[in-house]
Amino acid sequence: MAIIKKINHVAVAVDDIESSLAFWRDALGLEMTELRDAPAEAAQIAFLPVGGSEIELVRPTTDDSGLAKYLAKRGPGMHHICLEVDDIAGMLAQLKARGVRLINESPRTGADGRQYAFVHPEAAGGVLVELYQI
Amino acid sequence: MAIIKKINHVAVAVDDIESSLAFWRDALGLEMTELRDAPAEAAQIAFLPVGGSEIELVRPTTDDSGLAKYLAKRGPGMHHICLEVDDIAGMLAQLKARGVRLINESPRTGADGRQYAFVHPEAAGGVLVELYQI
Repeated sequence: MAIIKKINHVAVAVDDIESSLAFWRDALGLEMTELRDAPAEAAQIAFLPVGGSEIELVRPTTDDSGLAKYLAKRGPGMHHICLEVDDIAGMLAQLKARGVRLINESPRTGADGRQYAFVHPEAAGGVLVELYQI
Repeated sequence: MAIIKKINHVAVAVDDIESSLAFWRDALGLEMTELRDAPAEAAQIAFLPVGGSEIELVRPTTDDSGLAKYLAKRGPGMHHICLEVDDIAGMLAQLKARGVRLINESPRTGADGRQYAFVHPEAAGGVLVELYQI
């Protein structure tokens, strides 16, 4: 059975990276280790490690991505939680066998080589859950 | 300067603990270590440790708590993120000095003896942030 290892990150949808950093970095004192453009995700992402996890501040760079639509509809706030798994293909099979609705039926590979897949929020009580295998 | 140590937990607002456990425990395979009634918070809480953090499934037990109102307005989903801090009084002073709006101006003590305080979501880009000192 595939195992969830930890919370990899919590992603926060933001309108503006700089004003968000005024809270997360300057007031709370977290360190921003990287500010990355992620064209494949139509987003700019600020990474702030905390413990063995990260806060990611994610700003959409187009108007038509899922993130942009979420932001327009719900406003800024927590967008998804990413759980790190030891075997993402095994976990997706395990979820499918239980009838859990998935956004990605099989793992996708990100620009950084990590495998990821999203569970549909309908299956997770309104929470958008990303799975990561590193 | 007070230091954020890690993500202590991510709290998920749920209508029904059992149906939520069908996903988080039975499908993902997380262990529920405790199911606790928290009368002071007008909630029932299921604790599911993951890595050094926890997923908490929180169900309101009255109609008039902040959580119940959140659930009625926004539907189920992620409710808040709790960050563990080494010195909560110091962190609150640090936040106040920067003009960060707080829900709790000074630390409160929970039933389990932990000190906690909430930052106002207006100050954190729509995210409800709890601070914990253990």
